[in-house]
Parts: sequence; structure tokens; C-alpha cells
Amino acid sequence: MALVVKKFGGSSVADAVCLKRVAGLIADTYRQGNEVVAVLSAQGDTTDDLIEKARAINPHPSPREMDMLLSTGEQISVSLCAMALESLDLPVVSLTGWQVGMVTDTNYGNARIKKLTAERIRMELDRKNIVIVAGFQGVNRYDDVTTLGRGGSDTTAVAIAAALRADVCEIYTDVDGVYTADPRLVKSARKLEEITYDEMLELATLGAQVLHNRSVELAKRFHVPLTVLSSFKQVPGTQVKEVLKVEQMNVSGVAKDNNVARIALVGLDDTPGIAFKVFSLLARQKINVDIILQSIGRGETKDISFTVSQNHLDAARATLEAHRDTIGFQEMIISDRISKVSIVGAGMVGNPGVASQMFEAIADANINIQMISTSEIKVSVLLDQKDADLAVQVIHNKFFA
Amino acid sequence: MALVVKKFGGSSVADAVCLKRVAGLIADTYRQGNEVVAVLSAQGDTTDDLIEKARAINPHPSPREMDMLLSTGEQISVSLCAMALESLDLPVVSLTGWQVGMVTDTNYGNARIKKLTAERIRMELDRKNIVIVAGFQGVNRYDDVTTLGRGGSDTTAVAIAAALRADVCEIYTDVDGVYTADPRLVKSARKLEEITYDEMLELATLGAQVLHNRSVELAKRFHVPLTVLSSFKQVPGTQVKEVLKVEQMNVSGVAKDNNVARIALVGLDDTPGIAFKVFSLLARQKINVDIILQSIGRGETKDISFTVSQNHLDAARATLEAHRDTIGFQEMIISDRISKVSIVGAGMVGNPGVASQMFEAIADANINIQMISTSEIKVSVLLDQKDADLAVQVIHNKFFA
Repeated sequence: MALVVKKFGGSSVADAVCLKRVAGLIADTYRQGNEVVAVLSAQGDTTDDLIEKARAINPHPSPREMDMLLSTGEQISVSLCAMALESLDLPVVSLTGWQVGMVTDTNYGNARIKKLTAERIRMELDRKNIVIVAGFQGVNRYDDVTTLGRGGSDTTAVAIAAALRADVCEIYTDVDGVYTADPRLVKSARKLEEITYDEMLELATLGAQVLHNRSVELAKRFHVPLTVLSSFKQVPGTQVKEVLKVEQMNVSGVAKDNNVARIALVGLDDTPGIAFKVFSLLARQKINVDIILQSIGRGETKDISFTVSQNHLDAARATLEAHRDTIGFQEMIISDRISKVSIVGAGMVGNPGVASQMFEAIADANINIQMISTSEIKVSVLLDQKDADLAVQVIHNKFFA
Repeated sequence: MALVVKKFGGSSVADAVCLKRVAGLIADTYRQGNEVVAVLSAQGDTTDDLIEKARAINPHPSPREMDMLLSTGEQISVSLCAMALESLDLPVVSLTGWQVGMVTDTNYGNARIKKLTAERIRMELDRKNIVIVAGFQGVNRYDDVTTLGRGGSDTTAVAIAAALRADVCEIYTDVDGVYTADPRLVKSARKLEEITYDEMLELATLGAQVLHNRSVELAKRFHVPLTVLSSFKQVPGTQVKEVLKVEQMNVSGVAKDNNVARIALVGLDDTPGIAFKVFSLLARQKINVDIILQSIGRGETKDISFTVSQNHLDAARATLEAHRDTIGFQEMIISDRISKVSIVGAGMVGNPGVASQMFEAIADANINIQMISTSEIKVSVLLDQKDADLAVQVIHNKFFA
């Protein structure tokens, strides 16, 4: 007997047919003698519908009331899913975030989990109940409803798996695993049987969009074995774990991220402390900076280029403009038609040939590289957005063809 | 400064326009320096939509999961209403049943209130917040969500008014008060300025449908001053209170109830204990019996006729058929095309002329009376359903023309 946590996203529970399919998957696992906790997102477009209702009344509602509103979405899907399992004559109970003791901070709309007692879930499992939990939501110390923000339901599932010491946390999505590249982009993309937390983290951050990095970080910290699989096709998925089989590929995947903008500050004084000044200003505004490139000083001035996500671009630009005098740059050049293409693989450490193979593939395709960034398990390049899809293909061909 | 509890039903919060109107009414009272708690039902058709979603998945879901599902309806309307008040720059907070400490028994779908601490509401009022509370819902001792059944939001409002010792509990509906008869039926119907709890109770029970009797009972027990008024028209409503002005009408209203069925058991043994046998059987099935008429024994047999609400008819019939032998009746005659027409008025006690005036009006209209039932403050007659509207009119003319 195992304790299995399953998570189903919005498209997996979109309507009555989908919910019955999900109930079937849960029932199969339960009937095999396992304890099952399922974490659900809101149905397909429910969240968008609720947001539209709110906007019709107030274009700028408070985050507290938005959370109060949006958390109903998951409550609807868990009760409906429980009803689907009741119709299969299985013992089941649905629970909200506050009912499972999912205590968060007070950061409405993007709350962090502070504590999860999971006593209620444990009690229901001991009574042989299947437990269906509303993802994405919690409750803060004032007893107010909060939501966890992007990737919230994945995070709920991993947190519950960690609290219950589950044997596996299965993340069901509309794809059937983690691929070496986006299968819609690269026909020859292959599904990975396994991947490490670190590789998955890099892929998640780099825009593979299968798992949110917050949930992968949490899984890594608490050693929760993750599996990514499809709720539509009954095929084996991808396992995310600490250590892989000895014999593994150097490169586990190629990822593309269009949510990137580049800011170049030109003509800065070539004095110490300039970089600190720029990046501490941005950090104070909670703007994450990714790739940073600082030119070697020529004469009296130097340039600093860096990337931020597209949604932070306006805030970054405004912050820098407001401090133009203290920073002392001559010009700010913005580029938002760029992409970041990356290769990820734990086997890349101590294998310097990998990066040069990547650059070779890009050069052969006559694509210009704007910036480069490397870490122990990834190499990222910044390209013109129009070249990105081609770059993903030629890089994938290089390593996986 | 007064503490005002306002309750708005589903039609009053049906859409964005309605919610803004409701927010305006709340804002007016708050800006006049009062403390305001508003209790809301689910928006117009939300509950029906949710029920439809449930039925598509499971025709017979458990009451627990239905409550989990349906309670989202009020949560949506309170958060939207709070957003409407936020857009008027007023301090506001929305709260669910569990957040206000509305503790009920475990009778899902029709839960009774056990306790209401209202500490959270008091705290929010002390902070000068307007408080918007989800009606119709509570939480039981297992921390599971319950709903209060028919008239639930009225009951929530009155319970909160009682717990906070509010100065007034205003029930906003789509009519602008309590009338001497249904204004759609009787053109000359007059709005009552005031009415006693007892009269309101009789009218509610008798199908006036302005206020549910559960909420009136609660208001009477805790001396909560009620006002019934319109959320669409700004006109004075009807006050429901303990004692009226000295000079009052004998009859305060005429009501019609079509939700009635008559069962006649014919040819019963004329022995003691037969009535007990019949009505204890029905009581055990939680079937409420209203008017009872037992014929005087002629020879060796007698007949018993009584009324039940239409929705209890099938259960009553099945119960009686199952015990045909122990009860020992020869025939069961069902009549479900009947109506109950009643006059209500505290001034009727010690005024025997009232009943005969009523009978006279009915006789003059050539309408046959099937059964009669009287109490201290009402007289009810059972009629053929086709005669009911005419009966209401002629009775109203008799007393109010």
C-alpha cells in the first residue's frame, strides 16, 4: 500500500466528462489498495470568468477580495469531483485550503505556505476516505482566504505530499511528460523517463511550463518524488528525482523562453559600485534580473546589459529613469523582441564540449547570439525572437538526432 | 449611531448593476454614521447553475458535497459586493459562514444554527469596516461546510442581528413590504406599515413568501426588530415587531397557499388510538400534517382527512400504503388540486365576527369550503384550487374595501 498524491490542472477537470475521467484515475489507484489524496485546480475557464465578473464591478479590487472570489473556483471543482467518486460508490470527502490547515502568509494573490498540519487529511485517510483537496488556496493567521499565485496547485500538491510523507506526487497535465524540447516545436523531441530536480528547476524557469519552479523547489527540499504524466493518455510519464541512473545523457532538454526583455545602460562611469547601485535599486522593487553582461571599460565609460521578465520591464524602466542622475547613464536601450534558448543537463558539469556544440549548431544556422549565460547544469543564449524556434530545432538535432 | 443589519436576496444581487445598487444602499447607511453588516444570498441563478453542474456528474450527490458546492454561490456574491464598496472608497471586508463563526448542526442541506459568536464581525465593525457576510451557510463541529436550507439567508441575517443586538434587521426583497394580499392577485391590496411577529409567522407559513417563518421565529425569540423593504424602490417598508399601535385592524392580511394536498382515509375502525397511529407514523417520516378533520363515527367506521405540503405527498402516501393493514382503512383518497386561503390578524382574538364575515364572503361568491381550521390569529379554509384567486379577492374586499 502506498500513499499517492495526485494533482490535476484546470484543463484536466474542465467539464463533467473530464471530471469523470479524473475520478476514474483516482478510483483505479484507490482500488489497488492505496491511500489517495487528489489536489485540483479550478475548472478550465472558471478563474477567467470570475475575474471578468470582478472587473465589471471594480477594475482594481483589493487582493484580499480577489482571493475570496477566486478560491471558490477550486471549491467548485473538488466538490464536483467528490460527487463523481460518490457515483462510483467510493468513500470520499472534499476539503478546502482552510479545512486542510494550509496556513500561508498574508500576501494575498501570491501567498507563501507557512505551515501545513494536514491532520484533517490524515484523519480522513485513516477512515479509508479518498481526499480531494482544493489547490491554489490557503488561509492566513487572520482566518482570511489567500491564494498561492502561479503554480499554486502544483505547490499545494507537493506541500501535502511532503507533510504526509507520500510515496509519490503525481502531477497530471495535458502533456504526458517532460520532453527534450517542446514537441509542438521540434518533431523529434523525446520524452525523458527521468530528470533530476535541478534539471527540472532549470527547465521550469526557462519556460518549459510543465511544472512551476516553486513546486519543484519544494519537492527538492523535502525529497518528494514527483512524476509528470498525462490525464488524457495512459502512458508512463517522467520521474523527477534526486539522482538518476548512472548512464545518462549530457543534455536532458532544450527550452525556449519568450518572456524576456533586455535593458542596456550605455555610457556609465567606469567607477566601482555602479553595478551594485543598479541592481540594488531593482532588487528593492522586487524585480528579478537574470542574465547580466558588463562590458570591459573602454576609456572612461562602460555598459551594463541585463535581462528581466517582460512583465517586470515597465517597472524596471521606470525605476532606472527615476534614478538616471544618481546612476549616471547616457542612454537606456530596451529590447523586448528577444528569446532565451537554453540547454539543461546534470551531465554537463565537467563536460565543456557541450557548450561549444550548442554554439556550433547556432552558428551553422547563421543565427547571431546576443548574450550568453552558463551555470553548472545549463547554457543559455539570448537571440532575436524570430530566430528562436529555428535555434531550438538545430540545437535539438545536434544533441538528440 | 445605530447598528444596522441588511439582508439582500438573490434577485437583489443578480448582476453587476444590482450589486452596485446594493452597494449604494449599504454606503448610504454607513455614511450616515451607522455600523453596517450586510448579509447576501447567491446571485440570481448561481445556485441553479451549480445544481445543474452537480446533476451532470451525479444525480444523487451527498448532501455534504452539495453544501460544499452551493456555499460558493454566496462567497462569490459577498466578495463582488465588497469590491463594489471598495470602488466607492469605503472600508469593507467580506466574510464566509465559517469566518463569522456560524456554527450549525450536521444536518447538511437544512442545518440549524447552534451558535454564533460573531466576534470577528464585532472586531471588523470596531475597525470601522462595513462587513459583508455570506448568508445561507455555516460550519459544523467537524469543520465541514453546511447550508441552512430554505430561507437560510434571512435566518443568517436575523441570527447576526440577534448576536450583535442590532438596532434593526432590514430584509430587502423584490417587493416593498408586507401587503394585505398578494398585489399581483388583488389590485386593491394595501401595504402594511407594521405587523406583529405572530401575524408575520402565520402569513409566512401560509405562503405570503416575503419572509421565511424560520427567520421570523428567530426574530421573535430574540426580539430583533425586522423591516421588510424593497432594494429597487426607495419607499418605507413594513415593520415587524412585538406590539403594534393600539388602534389596529382586525385582519392584517389574506394569504393563499397552493402547496397543499389533502389525504382522506376512509372506512377506519371507530376505535380509540387510530388517529395516534396515523399521525405518529407520519411524524416518524418527518412529514408535517397541517389541517386535520376527523368525522364523527357513523356506525362502525369513521374517516380522517388531513393536509400535507405537496412535496410530502408521495412520502405520506407510501408510508400509509405500507401500513394499510395495521391502520385498517378501506380507501385512501388524494386531492392535490386544492388551495388554502387564510386571513391573519392579531386583532381577531375575541372577535368571533371575523370568521363568519370570511365565510360569508366565500359563500356569496358561490365557492365551496372543503375544510376549516382556526387559531387565535388566523382562519384558514381549504378550497378547490380553481376558486382560490377569486376567494382571496372577495375576502380582501370584505375586510379592506
